[in-house]
Amino acid sequence: MIQLALIGIGTGNPDHLTAQAVQEMNNADLILLPRKGSAKSDLADLRLAICAQVLTHPVRIAEFDMPIRDTGGDYKRAVDDWHEAIAAAWRAQITTHLPAGGRLVLLVWGDPSLYDSTLRIAKKLKAGGVTMQVRVLPGITSIQLLTAAHAIPLNPLAGAVTITTGRRLRAHGWPEGTDTIVVMLDSGSAFEVLEPQSITIWWGAYLGMAHEALEHGALGDAGPRIIARRAELRACHGWIMDVYLMRKEQI
Amino acid sequence: MIQLALIGIGTGNPDHLTAQAVQEMNNADLILLPRKGSAKSDLADLRLAICAQVLTHPVRIAEFDMPIRDTGGDYKRAVDDWHEAIAAAWRAQITTHLPAGGRLVLLVWGDPSLYDSTLRIAKKLKAGGVTMQVRVLPGITSIQLLTAAHAIPLNPLAGAVTITTGRRLRAHGWPEGTDTIVVMLDSGSAFEVLEPQSITIWWGAYLGMAHEALEHGALGDAGPRIIARRAELRACHGWIMDVYLMRKEQI
Ligand SMILES: C[S@@+](CC[C@H](N)C(=O)[O-])C[C@H]1O[C@@H](n2cnc3c(N)ncnc32)[C@H](O)[C@@H]1O
Ligand SMILES: C[S@@+](CC[C@H](N)C(=O)[O-])C[C@H]1O[C@@H](n2cnc3c(N)ncnc32)[C@H](O)[C@@H]1O
Repeated sequence: MIQLALIGIGTGNPDHLTAQAVQEMNNADLILLPRKGSAKSDLADLRLAICAQVLTHPVRIAEFDMPIRDTGGDYKRAVDDWHEAIAAAWRAQITTHLPAGGRLVLLVWGDPSLYDSTLRIAKKLKAGGVTMQVRVLPGITSIQLLTAAHAIPLNPLAGAVTITTGRRLRAHGWPEGTDTIVVMLDSGSAFEVLEPQSITIWWGAYLGMAHEALEHGALGDAGPRIIARRAELRACHGWIMDVYLMRKEQI
Repeated sequence: MIQLALIGIGTGNPDHLTAQAVQEMNNADLILLPRKGSAKSDLADLRLAICAQVLTHPVRIAEFDMPIRDTGGDYKRAVDDWHEAIAAAWRAQITTHLPAGGRLVLLVWGDPSLYDSTLRIAKKLKAGGVTMQVRVLPGITSIQLLTAAHAIPLNPLAGAVTITTGRRLRAHGWPEGTDTIVVMLDSGSAFEVLEPQSITIWWGAYLGMAHEALEHGALGDAGPRIIARRAELRACHGWIMDVYLMRKEQI
């Protein structure tokens, strides 16, 4: 029997781990990490740095190679195949390191509920016949880091908020019936499809990390500034992760 | 000069505090807490219990009486007046305990960004002439506790999520363009206004606390069960806080 704990680790600052997360990591029989080596190898390094910082005694750590996602063809099909491949990689590690079962920990970026596939992959592993209990330990999301860094509320008083993706914003525009939207997984400034008038934006990149970058202002002014800064930072670091919140003034 | 830190403390489990939150509490010159005595006095007690658990040396704690909110008349006006009264209560404490300035900490339920007024009240204090720097330290929200307890993702793959209130759900029904909604601040099972067919609900009350309660299922089945259980728990504990996520199956 595998007891799998999916632990939210926040988005870059080891001090954002909860006491519960630290405790669970210290009780693990195995911590499974994606191997570094990709463009985002900072992030694999960060997971190792978190282990080094919070483990109070030696815990076995195993690294696995992240399968590559097929980028052609049908999007949902490609993602599904990719998740199957990751499940197979986990399974191989479990067979090697925990043949008799035990407590397995996976460190999930931010919170495991938010635009993350770990829960879906764990489901596939279970469906594939691995006897397993899954627990989720919450972590601080990039959205909370964004609102904290700008010291702003997420929702307007008594209002609603929609969390969406760059792809959806490009395809469908501003969602109906909500004055505030948060955009994640935007590979290229989807806000440029909007009529900027009466929209304010709060943007953040590398939140919680040493090179955290922030911008905010009227979308007409701040938008071009963000596009330029984003390109510059991406070139400089080799990768970027950013998220932004936009609010429409009620007229 | 007041350095105000708004610290997200999670929603009931002291082990959900981050290392950063614990550190900041220990560095405070004053921690300001609402006095217990209300129906929700469990919650005031919990803040004191958190202080007792995480403070490694004596830090001054001051309690203030929460002003009562006017429930008649215009909603936004009443809330605004209430916030002014809270700002005045803080100000009195600051004058008494930090006449020469210093590090002031407020413990905010969940995360300070989510349906919480502390940021707005701090703004009023500043507008009223208190020289102040405001920092926000993120905390785990009740939404993350809900998805963690049920081990479910917040968003469907590549999809959007709307966070809304019971009041809005009653007034406007299911928001357009989104398959997943999270409902907060619902004083009475607003989901009953929906046609339950093809909707699944995941519900949680007292999340992170000893008497955490969970239900989930097809809305047609689970809805009446939740309504009954909610009434029972509310009667038993004298108060309830609950949150739920609903997903519409794509047909
Ligand atoms: C695959 S999702 C994972 C989200 C994560 N589970 C969370 O709770 O924030 C990746 C997206 O999250 C956002 N993100 C994650 N970490 C970030 C960071 N440190 N700074 C800014 N945005 C971040 C970006 O929008 C990015 O495209
Ligand atoms: C004033 S809002 C504060 C939300 C808080 N800032 C957060 O981050 O979760 C209060 C609402 O949050 C939700 N909530 C807060 N704590 C909760 C808990 N322990 N269990 C269930 N719901 C909770 C309920 O929907 C409640 O009506």
